[in-house]
Amino acid sequence: MSLQNPVFIPGPTNMPEAVRLACHMPTIDHRSPLFAEILHPCLDGVRRVLKSAAAEIFIFPSTGTGGWETALTNTLSPGDRVLAVRNGMFSHRWIDMCQRHGLDVQIVEAPWGAGIPAAAVEDALRADSGHVVSAVLATHNETATGVVSDIAAVRRAIDAADHPALLFVDGVSSIASMDFRFDDWRVDVAVAGSQKGFMLPPGLAITGFSARAMAAVEGAGLPRTFFDIRDMAAAYSKGAYPYTPAVGLMNGLKTALAMLEAEGLDAVFARHHRIAEGVRRAVDGWGMTLCAEPGVRSDTVSAVRTPPGFDATDIVTVAARDYGMAFGVGLGDVAGKVFRIGHLGSLTDAMMLSGLGVAEMVMVDLGLPVRLGSGVAAAQAYYRHDKAERKAAAA
Amino acid sequence: MSLQNPVFIPGPTNMPEAVRLACHMPTIDHRSPLFAEILHPCLDGVRRVLKSAAAEIFIFPSTGTGGWETALTNTLSPGDRVLAVRNGMFSHRWIDMCQRHGLDVQIVEAPWGAGIPAAAVEDALRADSGHVVSAVLATHNETATGVVSDIAAVRRAIDAADHPALLFVDGVSSIASMDFRFDDWRVDVAVAGSQKGFMLPPGLAITGFSARAMAAVEGAGLPRTFFDIRDMAAAYSKGAYPYTPAVGLMNGLKTALAMLEAEGLDAVFARHHRIAEGVRRAVDGWGMTLCAEPGVRSDTVSAVRTPPGFDATDIVTVAARDYGMAFGVGLGDVAGKVFRIGHLGSLTDAMMLSGLGVAEMVMVDLGLPVRLGSGVAAAQAYYRHDKAERKAAAA
Amino acid sequence: MSLQNPVFIPGPTNMPEAVRLACHMPTIDHRSPLFAEILHPCLDGVRRVLKSAAAEIFIFPSTGTGGWETALTNTLSPGDRVLAVRNGMFSHRWIDMCQRHGLDVQIVEAPWGAGIPAAAVEDALRADSGHVVSAVLATHNETATGVVSDIAAVRRAIDAADHPALLFVDGVSSIASMDFRFDDWRVDVAVAGSQKGFMLPPGLAITGFSARAMAAVEGAGLPRTFFDIRDMAAAYSKGAYPYTPAVGLMNGLKTALAMLEAEGLDAVFARHHRIAEGVRRAVDGWGMTLCAEPGVRSDTVSAVRTPPGFDATDIVTVAARDYGMAFGVGLGDVAGKVFRIGHLGSLTDAMMLSGLGVAEMVMVDLGLPVRLGSGVAAAQAYYRHDKAERKAAAA
Amino acid sequence: MSLQNPVFIPGPTNMPEAVRLACHMPTIDHRSPLFAEILHPCLDGVRRVLKSAAAEIFIFPSTGTGGWETALTNTLSPGDRVLAVRNGMFSHRWIDMCQRHGLDVQIVEAPWGAGIPAAAVEDALRADSGHVVSAVLATHNETATGVVSDIAAVRRAIDAADHPALLFVDGVSSIASMDFRFDDWRVDVAVAGSQKGFMLPPGLAITGFSARAMAAVEGAGLPRTFFDIRDMAAAYSKGAYPYTPAVGLMNGLKTALAMLEAEGLDAVFARHHRIAEGVRRAVDGWGMTLCAEPGVRSDTVSAVRTPPGFDATDIVTVAARDYGMAFGVGLGDVAGKVFRIGHLGSLTDAMMLSGLGVAEMVMVDLGLPVRLGSGVAAAQAYYRHDKAERKAAAA
Repeated sequence: MSLQNPVFIPGPTNMPEAVRLACHMPTIDHRSPLFAEILHPCLDGVRRVLKSAAAEIFIFPSTGTGGWETALTNTLSPGDRVLAVRNGMFSHRWIDMCQRHGLDVQIVEAPWGAGIPAAAVEDALRADSGHVVSAVLATHNETATGVVSDIAAVRRAIDAADHPALLFVDGVSSIASMDFRFDDWRVDVAVAGSQKGFMLPPGLAITGFSARAMAAVEGAGLPRTFFDIRDMAAAYSKGAYPYTPAVGLMNGLKTALAMLEAEGLDAVFARHHRIAEGVRRAVDGWGMTLCAEPGVRSDTVSAVRTPPGFDATDIVTVAARDYGMAFGVGLGDVAGKVFRIGHLGSLTDAMMLSGLGVAEMVMVDLGLPVRLGSGVAAAQAYYRHDKAERKAAAA
Repeated sequence: MSLQNPVFIPGPTNMPEAVRLACHMPTIDHRSPLFAEILHPCLDGVRRVLKSAAAEIFIFPSTGTGGWETALTNTLSPGDRVLAVRNGMFSHRWIDMCQRHGLDVQIVEAPWGAGIPAAAVEDALRADSGHVVSAVLATHNETATGVVSDIAAVRRAIDAADHPALLFVDGVSSIASMDFRFDDWRVDVAVAGSQKGFMLPPGLAITGFSARAMAAVEGAGLPRTFFDIRDMAAAYSKGAYPYTPAVGLMNGLKTALAMLEAEGLDAVFARHHRIAEGVRRAVDGWGMTLCAEPGVRSDTVSAVRTPPGFDATDIVTVAARDYGMAFGVGLGDVAGKVFRIGHLGSLTDAMMLSGLGVAEMVMVDLGLPVRLGSGVAAAQAYYRHDKAERKAAAA
Repeated sequence: MSLQNPVFIPGPTNMPEAVRLACHMPTIDHRSPLFAEILHPCLDGVRRVLKSAAAEIFIFPSTGTGGWETALTNTLSPGDRVLAVRNGMFSHRWIDMCQRHGLDVQIVEAPWGAGIPAAAVEDALRADSGHVVSAVLATHNETATGVVSDIAAVRRAIDAADHPALLFVDGVSSIASMDFRFDDWRVDVAVAGSQKGFMLPPGLAITGFSARAMAAVEGAGLPRTFFDIRDMAAAYSKGAYPYTPAVGLMNGLKTALAMLEAEGLDAVFARHHRIAEGVRRAVDGWGMTLCAEPGVRSDTVSAVRTPPGFDATDIVTVAARDYGMAFGVGLGDVAGKVFRIGHLGSLTDAMMLSGLGVAEMVMVDLGLPVRLGSGVAAAQAYYRHDKAERKAAAA
Repeated sequence: MSLQNPVFIPGPTNMPEAVRLACHMPTIDHRSPLFAEILHPCLDGVRRVLKSAAAEIFIFPSTGTGGWETALTNTLSPGDRVLAVRNGMFSHRWIDMCQRHGLDVQIVEAPWGAGIPAAAVEDALRADSGHVVSAVLATHNETATGVVSDIAAVRRAIDAADHPALLFVDGVSSIASMDFRFDDWRVDVAVAGSQKGFMLPPGLAITGFSARAMAAVEGAGLPRTFFDIRDMAAAYSKGAYPYTPAVGLMNGLKTALAMLEAEGLDAVFARHHRIAEGVRRAVDGWGMTLCAEPGVRSDTVSAVRTPPGFDATDIVTVAARDYGMAFGVGLGDVAGKVFRIGHLGSLTDAMMLSGLGVAEMVMVDLGLPVRLGSGVAAAQAYYRHDKAERKAAAA
């Protein structure tokens, strides 16, 4: 019998019932005015999630990877130089995409587990006195390491260097779960996906472009058609799409956005922070450490280091096989060294306790020196504590 | 935002996705042969769940209460005497129904928390030398107290008294979750509902009749039409219903039965036992006791006694209000004295840990002397232990 | 491949997507305040559909047949006399129920195809100078013959005879599809089901009781527990149920009521009338006649007479087998003489055309002298005509 | 009230219930072995639909447009010449994509309404003695005009010219609805989408590559990452994806493929042909003509020419506004001159009759000289006739 546990992978996330049902809509004519009633609330709602007044939003039947390609191909030309920080698997993959698209990537390396070194970015840009660098690529939340970087600091670094480079931010695993300030940070292109904070099935790339990024579009020499935002913009102005939109997923996005607003964006972020902090205390309770350094620990995913000589992937394998529960494996440089607990999207404290409880059982099964209940109790204490504090604050 | 936790009420239970989707079927013509493809697997599957070779199965668009009425009205006449044991709220309600239907109820009282006293049943039947008692009413699993009674012992009591009374068993919260042996125990009428072990939404009364019970139908003087099993039997023989069947729920039942058989009935019972035993160890870990006496503790619901002076209903209220989780309140004589944890239906060890974890937080919130993690850890230890043992046994 | 056509049986009907999804809800605690948010809108909405200010509404996990039993057992005692009109299969079955419940039924016979003869009712009541008759039973819409009767005339007949009998009306296949005036007609008990005008799956009996009917409840001697409205009333006052409610179906009812009100009850009735009138013109176009006499033709179901010597059931069989479409067979006295086209619930003109088109093909396949397109064209002409007229009226 | 009619746009199509439910799955870990149980049946099933023994299948979270880009970018380099036939809006758009990707497009123009002129293709290739042309682009079914072209003839033309060009075929609106022979026709890249013959929501680009096309991949100079089939191939070999797959849509595809095989591919094609032929006879019955020339009329979409001076788009507008039914507008050169009836995917004869019936009403509403029932009757006659013939053939 297939009994369904929640998943604790760092996306796709657990989906709210109402979002799933909204995706499950019957066929409509996407060339009729019915579609505009889906499209426009999506564009407006995403803009609000980005905390932007005027970002141009473009949504593709694709994934976050397609969102990266949208950012690059609509603004850059072959041979253009970009400055990119590599501190995990997803920043690495974005760099790889740049190289395969013929861009000249200047890489700032940072340890897997560290955040973006804003000072190094500033140094690199200061050194670029000729302003050869066209764009800075930053991964807001490194899903591989559970590291959230300070994008405001990256913006300050660019400003301090007085450099005109565009700022592209991968917010796939942060947007709609953690605070993201498109306008305050003067982000030029933001990239998100449907299957993380938006609590939808995978299948949408969600992007936001600033006026400066839009100004770069005509001169961008990289070829693109499917991801060309000019076609999107022209079609959106008529409430339509340049090709067949993923209507059901967009209807789900409309509902997800309404749910996020009903809970309140700040309450959504606070919930993610609370659940994440409980996870972090559980990890402490287990006597283990996170891959992410203090100060840059993500509220959407925690990568937990296992002791030397232990293959962290076994935890994921045993959890799936013996307990029917999904956690994330380590990727790239930290493969086998960490396992990842996703804690984003449609999630409650109660669900998180079941994830922590199973993780404990698996670790004990595998001989790790973890005491049953130790992590759960630490998380419970925080979930209670915080609850009391919030009530006091609200009173 | 409405984030969905599993429920821990003693029914309706959490439903498997496949069962929900099967219920969600489009309209079909219930007078066409399509319906027989749903009806017959339901009748056959329920019979197998009852471990019966030849019980006649009747399924009504109703609830367990309707199933009780089906049992009574199809076999008894006004003024008939029945012998009924009262050891909780649901046995009490069945007695009330008997009285409202003009039956003469001889009540064997037992403490709330005790099982059916087979010796007292035997004594009462021996005393009934004139065989006035037409039927013995037994509640297999008292949902109000978390007590499972020994129906085999009741059968032995009847036999020992050499009494011809029929044996009616309320198995609403046991059937499909705990072993039920219609043929071995020579049950005459068994009553179940859709929303417990069958993992369906509420809306079906499921009953089984023995040949002896069927023989009583023609002479039964209580009026009935909706619940008349003669109309059902006649219609079933043509693959149809005497009125409009609850087609979607029955399609769900067909799927649920297939899932139960795929897991294996004994494996289903073992899973319920394992989850329940973990709950019992958690209650021990909290330093609390169950309403049910040792030896009669149910594998589908646990009623947990709270300290004197404490209103157990507060636990249910706070769990719902602050943590979005549903537990069961105490009913009748134990209202305010117990809260109930339902652990039946579509449930995993992992889900149960989240229920125990939240119960702990709520009890601490309410000032009860419970240590966070204490119950969860006790349950985890059992869930692990048992897992290892099962593997050893299987090897 | 199972390709889904709409059904044209006289219930269960085609269901709107939103209603199906509302039924498909996850488990909630039906003893929590969440349930009251479903219950109360249902009770209020049903009352509005009945056009009543103060009818007491009771909803059972059951069917229309259970609704009949609710009406009888809550108001009458064994041996009570009721006056019932028999003009079709469903009025026949209600009479049968009365007899099986020990009531003394005085039957007014009317031809199958005729409406209720109000004059005969008046005569019978005048003759009952001792006021022995406790209740008059009337079937508003005979689903077997497609006959709608004039309940206002029945009320006038009772009044003209100055008789105190209660008026019970079976509105299973009329309520929510055709005008029903509980207060104006001074109906005492109205009975409906979920699977007709309410566009839900089967599984709910929906009843309304007048103050006079409520006054009869305490004195009613027929035994009942499952259908006892006293338990319902007591539980409703606390936002709860005396047993487990069919939560999902009630959530669907809440949505269906909202849809009916959004369209507007009068618009719903007008749509049913328009679709039905198109069907009647199609039947004319085929050169065939309806079972129902002129003036009493139902807006929810049409029973079409086939030529002598022809087995009308073949139409239903062939439509299902060769075209995957469901129509209704003739029942009782008109079995084999009519086939029935259901046209109620969630239905559009366009869907109806497909039903008429298939019916034509089947009749031609079976050698009936019907011209392809003849009925469809007649219906189209009316659907267009009416549309133009409505626009003119609205301008 | 939102009552749902079937849609008659040429995609997205009506979806079978089972496919919709399969898409509606809960979240799973797409990096776990569970995903391979979805992926592999999809790849194998698509290959069978293409009637290919060894085509490499790649499925992207995208649309048919993304499939075109996959074909081009994985096999060609900037400046490469392709030979493309333009006979409608979709072939035009593919040409536009080529040009935007820096390819040198040699265009063979054909009238909108004509099929691909194989002789002209042969002439062009013969003239290309230096074998500069790298690929021939052919649109199997022009969705804008309802024209199906003879791909076997295109293959013969290439062979006759003894030209090594690759053959790329857009089968978005033909594959899975009409016969497509990847191996027999020696197609090199075939492109399909989820939302046509596969009966799914939009959101997948489905492509097949021949061994020759695979051999071109390494040398292809067009940049691509999201659509790079090398990453797909590497990931597929591990049962995984290079990024997050659209798991739900793929689960739906698995179910859709199983449904297509259960009905039988040839039966699926025959059903599409039958329904289409009925539409064509209806158009004759209306005294109107198709955009498509005789001999190249599509079995998935019919573009119906309206009289000079009449704006065909009005038909689509009025059908949606007054009858709640969706047809397709004319696009590009035939905008305003045709309206389109989609008749592919999950469709029955009965559903088609409702579409034809509404189209008739709308045309009469708009003053066109069409007789109500004329088209419906012609279609009925064919649907019956064909049914009789099939039975005779089967006997």
